[in-house]
Amino acid sequence: MARIAALEQLVHELSKLPGIGEKTATRLAYFVLNNKQSFGPQLRRALKEVEDKIRNCTECNTFTDQEICEICASPLRDEKTLCIVEQADDVFKIEAAGMFKGKYHVLGGVLSPMQGIQPEDLSITPLLQRIEDKGVTEVILALDADLEGDTTALYIAKQLEGKNIKLTRLAQGIPIGSDLDFMDHRTLGRALENRVEL
Amino acid sequence: MARIAALEQLVHELSKLPGIGEKTATRLAYFVLNNKQSFGPQLRRALKEVEDKIRNCTECNTFTDQEICEICASPLRDEKTLCIVEQADDVFKIEAAGMFKGKYHVLGGVLSPMQGIQPEDLSITPLLQRIEDKGVTEVILALDADLEGDTTALYIAKQLEGKNIKLTRLAQGIPIGSDLDFMDHRTLGRALENRVEL
Repeated sequence: MARIAALEQLVHELSKLPGIGEKTATRLAYFVLNNKQSFGPQLRRALKEVEDKIRNCTECNTFTDQEICEICASPLRDEKTLCIVEQADDVFKIEAAGMFKGKYHVLGGVLSPMQGIQPEDLSITPLLQRIEDKGVTEVILALDADLEGDTTALYIAKQLEGKNIKLTRLAQGIPIGSDLDFMDHRTLGRALENRVEL
Repeated sequence: MARIAALEQLVHELSKLPGIGEKTATRLAYFVLNNKQSFGPQLRRALKEVEDKIRNCTECNTFTDQEICEICASPLRDEKTLCIVEQADDVFKIEAAGMFKGKYHVLGGVLSPMQGIQPEDLSITPLLQRIEDKGVTEVILALDADLEGDTTALYIAKQLEGKNIKLTRLAQGIPIGSDLDFMDHRTLGRALENRVEL
């Protein structure tokens, strides 16, 4: 088959998407080609809109098409309780649980010496400023339970030392509906350690 | 979570892609957002290039960035044997098998009374013209083995009646490496009917 440079470039770009391998990217690229007049321009327009209109909330750093996001602007949310997340989509996931009534702060990543991500690269200084300004009384760390998440949590904990702020993190244990057989021993150990009285 | 119109529109567009549901589309859209400066514009550029540069080969109707595709332009390919396929990506798949040395003709779809796809909507008139002009001696129908594929094959067979052209279609039977247990009875019946001497 003749190699078509523009098609190969599109496959290359599409395969950068998470979970999309070269085979799927090829299938998607052919879909684009077969719908060149309608789908292609529509997708380009949607991408352009996202690039132009969506920015980071000046308060919490999540994505918004306003100056300040809806959650930060809401008088119904408790600004003294801050939930710290890695990425803006984590806000979406925690909101879907419908339990949290405080506000968020999006770090924009986690500390990773391996990838050279330092505290200056994350929204940590604005976070500390915000905690000071708003008189935050509780900070909930909702970071991933991996090495980078733990490192970041420890770093933030250190910054808040002696400030009389309640610092918590998400409970670790067995996911609801899971089978004990499929749990790794570290999760089981943590679940045992944090056991709750019935 | 605040609804962001531009983000929702992007999710809507991405979920038109084959095999991409709303959940995956949301994950892809957040990837675009998290890489707004780099990935978004690159993907838009790749889409634009595909729209601008790729067109249909004037001979066989496949995708190409030339006037005539590489296969049609090649003197090494036998122009008297035509393999008829539904879509341009079928050409890619058959080429990958590396067995076929003739040329292709892409119909651009299959007949479907249900979806209102008529012979005029497909590249059938140019096909008949080409068969005439080039003195084609064998036509291989490489269409899907479903109702629409069969209808289209029959229609083309009818057009070629009395023209002294060898008309064949891809063999139907059991895929290599498959287990008999998982074959449907129609495939089994066809495989039995078309049994080959060892």
